[in-house]
Amino acid sequence: VKFRTFCLLFIGGLAVAQPQPETLKSPEVQPDRRVTFRLRAPNANEVTMRGDWMSAAEKLTKDDQGVWSITLGPLAPAIYSYTFTVDGVRVLDPRNGAVKLGVGGAQASSVDVPDEKGSPWDMRSVAHGAVHLHWYTPPGAAVPRRVAVYTPPDYDKNGGTRYPVLYLLHGSGDTEMEWSEYGRANFIADNLIAEGKARPMVIVMPNGHVIPASAPRETRGRNTELFEADLLQQIMPLVESRYRVAPGPKNRAIAGLSMGGYQSLLVGLGNLDKFGNIGVFSAGARGLDADRYKSVLADSGRLAKSLDVFWIGIGDKDALIKDAAILETTLKTANVRHQYVVTPGGAHTWMIWRSYLSEFLPLLFQRRS
Amino acid sequence: VKFRTFCLLFIGGLAVAQPQPETLKSPEVQPDRRVTFRLRAPNANEVTMRGDWMSAAEKLTKDDQGVWSITLGPLAPAIYSYTFTVDGVRVLDPRNGAVKLGVGGAQASSVDVPDEKGSPWDMRSVAHGAVHLHWYTPPGAAVPRRVAVYTPPDYDKNGGTRYPVLYLLHGSGDTEMEWSEYGRANFIADNLIAEGKARPMVIVMPNGHVIPASAPRETRGRNTELFEADLLQQIMPLVESRYRVAPGPKNRAIAGLSMGGYQSLLVGLGNLDKFGNIGVFSAGARGLDADRYKSVLADSGRLAKSLDVFWIGIGDKDALIKDAAILETTLKTANVRHQYVVTPGGAHTWMIWRSYLSEFLPLLFQRRS
Repeated sequence: VKFRTFCLLFIGGLAVAQPQPETLKSPEVQPDRRVTFRLRAPNANEVTMRGDWMSAAEKLTKDDQGVWSITLGPLAPAIYSYTFTVDGVRVLDPRNGAVKLGVGGAQASSVDVPDEKGSPWDMRSVAHGAVHLHWYTPPGAAVPRRVAVYTPPDYDKNGGTRYPVLYLLHGSGDTEMEWSEYGRANFIADNLIAEGKARPMVIVMPNGHVIPASAPRETRGRNTELFEADLLQQIMPLVESRYRVAPGPKNRAIAGLSMGGYQSLLVGLGNLDKFGNIGVFSAGARGLDADRYKSVLADSGRLAKSLDVFWIGIGDKDALIKDAAILETTLKTANVRHQYVVTPGGAHTWMIWRSYLSEFLPLLFQRRS
Repeated sequence: VKFRTFCLLFIGGLAVAQPQPETLKSPEVQPDRRVTFRLRAPNANEVTMRGDWMSAAEKLTKDDQGVWSITLGPLAPAIYSYTFTVDGVRVLDPRNGAVKLGVGGAQASSVDVPDEKGSPWDMRSVAHGAVHLHWYTPPGAAVPRRVAVYTPPDYDKNGGTRYPVLYLLHGSGDTEMEWSEYGRANFIADNLIAEGKARPMVIVMPNGHVIPASAPRETRGRNTELFEADLLQQIMPLVESRYRVAPGPKNRAIAGLSMGGYQSLLVGLGNLDKFGNIGVFSAGARGLDADRYKSVLADSGRLAKSLDVFWIGIGDKDALIKDAAILETTLKTANVRHQYVVTPGGAHTWMIWRSYLSEFLPLLFQRRS
């Protein structure tokens, strides 16, 4: 009823005799970066909330109007995600239109706590690139798959220019939309390009789930292998035919977060003829023990020549740091040139991935070939 | 904790010692088109659900595992939206990745009940167009606004061709993404173009909220006027400079649903030099009493020459049918050529808007000029 009422109410902005619309504000970011979260739930017995910056859930308290609230922080400037839990059920904030979508069960509300000095992911008034959504149907697939492609601000004006290209992969809770819609990859690139800190580039954001994320655990084992085929046989030909991308591995990078970091590592090292730059955000060494990679890692000379950038970042509060440390040891032992960045206090959240992308983009495609 | 666990669990598809992931299936569409909805909520006192096809909420029942469920239908083939209400709080289905976003408070889960004979909005294996997202910052705006642009499947191949263009506007609960992400406008166009039933066209989907939908009612009054300025001064120049669109009003249409239908009516009739086709889905006559429109409607001869298509659709179960009937009477009295379609059983929901778009697109740009 509420939804319907809403439609009628605002048509033409006329006041119609209707119940007063909900005016509760949530979240409310104060100037001192404390944030108040509110939820109207007169009949609930318990409301808690959990944010991706919190180590444990916190209880909200109810006022005499049935509104539950809590004020947290001050929070460090960042974009955070959070959910309420009402009598045991995870709930988005109904007063907040900012939502991280992703795969089923991974949805959350989000709140932007801005930095007065500015952040690399701010929506600034600079020249903006565009994000293009393409559908393709691989042979045998029941429904089309989708890929998002960022083109830099000057792309349409520089008809003769070919651009280097980054393939940017999401995590297991995400889809092809999260890097742009939630991770702000396009704004990060816009800002760095405007400041002259990153080269204008095309950024391709595929869907990393070929086997659905909701599939039973035992059937997920082949996902990386199938994703590699999807990327090489479907997405790269689509990109190379539709966009003015520069040829050769030195003009291509592959990077990703969590599951996508793992995919970047395996697909990148497995295809040095295609990718000359690899970024691994918050992931580790799993799968590198396969024969395919043993032989690649054994040839550190070829690796040094092939890879301009091999960047690994992990937070020291991330459970996957053990995995990342194994990767670091493997690379050191094999004498493979790389950068290994451990972020103090960093956890397995989107906060760190926006920062990593902001650090990673300026490293790419600096060697003029 | 669950979210984090999920990330760790599926990395590389390896089974790690972790709690069993949630395997509950919701929604589950049976072959007979009955649909089962399930929610795990052992601590809740009451769980109800409401779908946009239902006239009243229904109670779910709890089993001894704390799982609430209900089986509804058989439902007519369509894409529906629904939410659970847990102890008084509206909740998305946490097991369902399909979400209608929109503005705060209007989010809902969605379920596709397919028609075995096929629907115009099915994701078929035909040639697909692309959807392009552009950001622009109007003078004085604090943050960039966004517009989505559909280009038809052959757009990139026909370098010399200019395409007619439809400006397609959303409702008050929506954003610039709903027509494509939830309304499947791109798939509807792909399918009709593949069947030769609609002309290949560019479809521009702006954001109709210049004043935020969450603003107090009294400040919303100027939204239509500000939207008209945004469309004419920002979006149309962006589209005309970046896309190969054909010039002149006969090659342009404006249509929308609910709030967007109202905007299409006023902006279309107010700019006959720009728009030669108007579609009004589930909206009515509000605002037409202004002097600006009185003079337009008084000249039925000019209107007949200006408008190739003037199409109005409304469901007979829609509360706005009174408004639409006033529009119909006004147009009849003024002797203005138009089509007025009343859909038996049709309500104010997205089900009808996908159908209306499927009916409307084949009417457009048929007169070769």
